[in-house]
Formats: sequence, C-alpha cells, structure tokens
Amino acid sequence: MIDASLPVAMFDSGVGGLTVLHECLVALPQEDYLYLGDTAMFPYGERDPAELRRRIALIVAKLLERGAKLLVIACNTATAIGEEVAREVAAKYGVEVVPVVAPQAEIAAAITDNGRVGVLATTNTVESGAYRRALEAEGRGLDVIEVAAPRLAPFIQEGSLFDEETMAMARGYCAPLRKAGVDTLILGCTHFPLVAPMLQRILGRNVRLVSGGHAVAAAIQRTLEGSGLAREGDDEGTYEFFCTGPVSSFGDVATRFLQMPLGEVRQVEFTVPA
Amino acid sequence: MIDASLPVAMFDSGVGGLTVLHECLVALPQEDYLYLGDTAMFPYGERDPAELRRRIALIVAKLLERGAKLLVIACNTATAIGEEVAREVAAKYGVEVVPVVAPQAEIAAAITDNGRVGVLATTNTVESGAYRRALEAEGRGLDVIEVAAPRLAPFIQEGSLFDEETMAMARGYCAPLRKAGVDTLILGCTHFPLVAPMLQRILGRNVRLVSGGHAVAAAIQRTLEGSGLAREGDDEGTYEFFCTGPVSSFGDVATRFLQMPLGEVRQVEFTVPA
Repeated sequence: MIDASLPVAMFDSGVGGLTVLHECLVALPQEDYLYLGDTAMFPYGERDPAELRRRIALIVAKLLERGAKLLVIACNTATAIGEEVAREVAAKYGVEVVPVVAPQAEIAAAITDNGRVGVLATTNTVESGAYRRALEAEGRGLDVIEVAAPRLAPFIQEGSLFDEETMAMARGYCAPLRKAGVDTLILGCTHFPLVAPMLQRILGRNVRLVSGGHAVAAAIQRTLEGSGLAREGDDEGTYEFFCTGPVSSFGDVATRFLQMPLGEVRQVEFTVPA
Repeated sequence: MIDASLPVAMFDSGVGGLTVLHECLVALPQEDYLYLGDTAMFPYGERDPAELRRRIALIVAKLLERGAKLLVIACNTATAIGEEVAREVAAKYGVEVVPVVAPQAEIAAAITDNGRVGVLATTNTVESGAYRRALEAEGRGLDVIEVAAPRLAPFIQEGSLFDEETMAMARGYCAPLRKAGVDTLILGCTHFPLVAPMLQRILGRNVRLVSGGHAVAAAIQRTLEGSGLAREGDDEGTYEFFCTGPVSSFGDVATRFLQMPLGEVRQVEFTVPA
C-alpha cells in the first residue's frame, strides 16, 4: 500500500544525484529520502545501453521493494536510456516516476533569448537524442548544440583536484558551445552542477546554466500533491544512503558536496542478470 | 602612474574573498588580479579593531606599492572596521576602493518582501553596526536582525568536514533568523557563500541569500569604466596569489573552492607596526 508516510526513493550512478537531493531537502524538507548511488557501475555515461536498462530495472525493483511512494531518476543518462523501463517496473508497484530530462528542457526553452541552447552531457545521453527531442518538442525552432563530455563526471565523482589538465579538458568541452554562441546551457548530467563555477568562468556571464535539481524538486512536489502523497507538517524528514561500490570514497565526496553528514552509508550488492 | 594595464588588487583574511574573485573572473575575465589572503592573522572577526586597522593600512600600502589600479576589500570585517583607513592609504596612491558592505545592503533592501532582513556576519562586523547603518540608509524602515557567527568562517577556512556538530552550530546561528521570519539573509562574510547550500537547507526555500560577489563585481566594473581604467579586448587576464600564513593549506582549500589551479601561491611576511 502506497501512502504518504513512505520515503521518496532516488538513484544515480554516483554522487551527481545529490544535486537533486539537495534541492529536495530545501524545497521538501518534511519528506523522508532514500538515495542509492550505483557506484559499482559508475560511470553510466559510457556503458552499453542494453546492460544499463537491465541494471536500472533491477535498481528500481530493489528500491520499491523496500517501500517508497515515488521514484526519482536523479541521473540524466539513466533517464535518457532507461526512463521507459523504469516506468514499466515502477508501474508494477503502483509508483510514479519523476525523470530529469524534460523539466530542464522546458526551463531552457523558456529562458533562451537567442534560441541557441547547448547541452553538455554524457556520451550515452547525447547519443540517445533525449534532450534534442525534448527541446524540439517545445516548438520554438531552437538550435540545439550537444557536446559529449565523457571525462567530466568521473573527474567529479573521484573528487579530484582542479589542475591545468582539468581546465584544458573543460575548455575543450566548452569550445564548441562558445563558438556556436549559445546563451543557455543545459547541464545534462546531475554531476555537472558541482562544477558550475568552473563552467561559468569558462563560458562567461552571458551564458545561463540550467541545472536539473530545482525543476525536478518542483516536479516531485507537483506529483506528490497531485496524488495526495505529500507529507504534512513541519518536522524534518530523514535520509538514508546506499551505494553499490566502496562506502568510504562515496561518503567523503558526498559529504563535501552535499555539505551535511550522511549518517551511516550502507553498501548493497546487486547481481545484474545476464 | 595608474593605468588600465595594472592589476586589480584584493585582499581578505583567508579564502573567503575568493567568492568575490570568482565573480570577477566571470564578469571581468580580461583583467589581471592580485589576491592576498592574510591567513597569518585569520580570523579577522574576533581581532582587536585598532590592531586590525593598522594591519589593513599596511596591507593596502604593500599591495599598492606593487602596482594596482583598484583596491577591493574582499572581506566584510575589514570593510566594517577598516574601510576608512583603507581609503586614506589608497588615496595616497591615487587608487579608488571598492568595499563589500554597501553593494549587498542595496540588493537586500531591494528584494525583501516582508521588510525583515537578516545579517549573518563575524562578531566584529555585527558590533561595527556597518550593515545596520547601510540598511537603514536605504530608507525602507527595514527590520534588521543581526547574528554573529564566530565559528563559521574558521570552519570554512580550515576545510573541515561537515558533521553533526557543524550542523548543530549552523542551526544555532540560523535559529534567531528563522524565529524572526526574515525573508532575505545577507551573507555578511565573504567566507559564507561557500556554505550557502547548508544554510539554504536550514533556512528553507523562502529565504533568499544575498552574497557579496556579484554586486561587488558590478561595482568594480562601474568604477573601472568610470575612471577609464577598464581593460579592453578578449584576452584572458592573469592572477597571482599571496598569503601570509602557510602556503599549502591555503592552496588546497582555495583550489577546491575556486575550482581552478592557483599556480604558485607565494608567502609574504608583514611586520605589523605596534
């Protein structure tokens, strides 16, 4: 039985989804949250799509078996590749799904002045064409410039130091966006808002960065209220963290980025069906 | 001779002023910057005001002797306690000064809906009354709720991990602001934007945080353009970092927060006149 007392479940390949969780904790602090970082499979961005879909189906089932009232795909690659399978599995549990791609595309289409919108994402997300379709569906005849940035999420996930090589990598990814004159850039991976200062500096102040977190938190609120599952009251909810890879590296990077203690992070093991 | 080719000089007690430098690098990337973190004297927030004024006079003189076209006080405590002495010294070199308090007060007064504005700052800044005066000067009859947060800048400067004790400290500082129902909070120390996510979570989405960086970068641009000292062209400027305490801890924390390599950070030693 799905009721308002259950937690909101969300997953990502690693710490990127914490940028979504953060916005949820700001906007909907009274809810309980369950967060899974599938760090054993990180990065999703370069994995075989069929393998990823099997993995996503398994994760969704495991999370919803624990009990959750909503499933948030806090990962752009998982949304681009596996939104459909996630919805199929969640439907068996009677649970709705909130993805990350569509809410961002809507905002970007609304705020661009010159109609040139960039998308910085993983290889899988770019190749899926999910953002291009979502932006074209807005019907504004937008120019969409997509750039695959395969090395950026791993850099963030590892908590590496910013050095000259990092800057050269980031400048390289931004060069075609600058050349195309985009005035709006979708950060099409939930990891990327964590390096928004670096990207903003490279792109300059005339480019607006669109992160997913805020839009997704709003979509979560609408969905919960629409289905009568929002929790009432002023009490602060709880949160639980799980990851599939080593606990310590996840905990360190996550604590720094989320700026709060995580409590005990528990490791869970999944066997991916062949 | 002051000309457009000279760098913009700025100083802070530590890494906090980097939040101002970051906005400058986004808005005015063609300028050269000279940044001094007076880490040997950190934290300014609890120092004797007379001692601080002597220190500030010395720093301003040393920076301007190296050659600079503008002096930015990228520290709220130094602005609150020493703006006047900084202006006196800078005037001898024919250099204008941009402080951090006034530009923020202007923004906060403009955006508050309910007229209740909070100020989170160091003990020295609160006791100086600088924000209260600046907010009252806006003539909107604002309620000003000031909270001294002496432990927050040291926590940030040390690059410490977020744990339960950190959260309790931050919740304690935020409690009187929540109770007073402020809808706008001035982050009255340049260190504090670095923990904006934590503060935003504690205060909730209905409180708007006002950082100094953006307003100060705009003030710097206006001042440079007004005096014909803005640098033309698209070339990216250079930056140099100095600190008065140990180099390594400054470099590590600064690199992480600024999200860029600093190059060689040089240690300079000052003898404070008695």
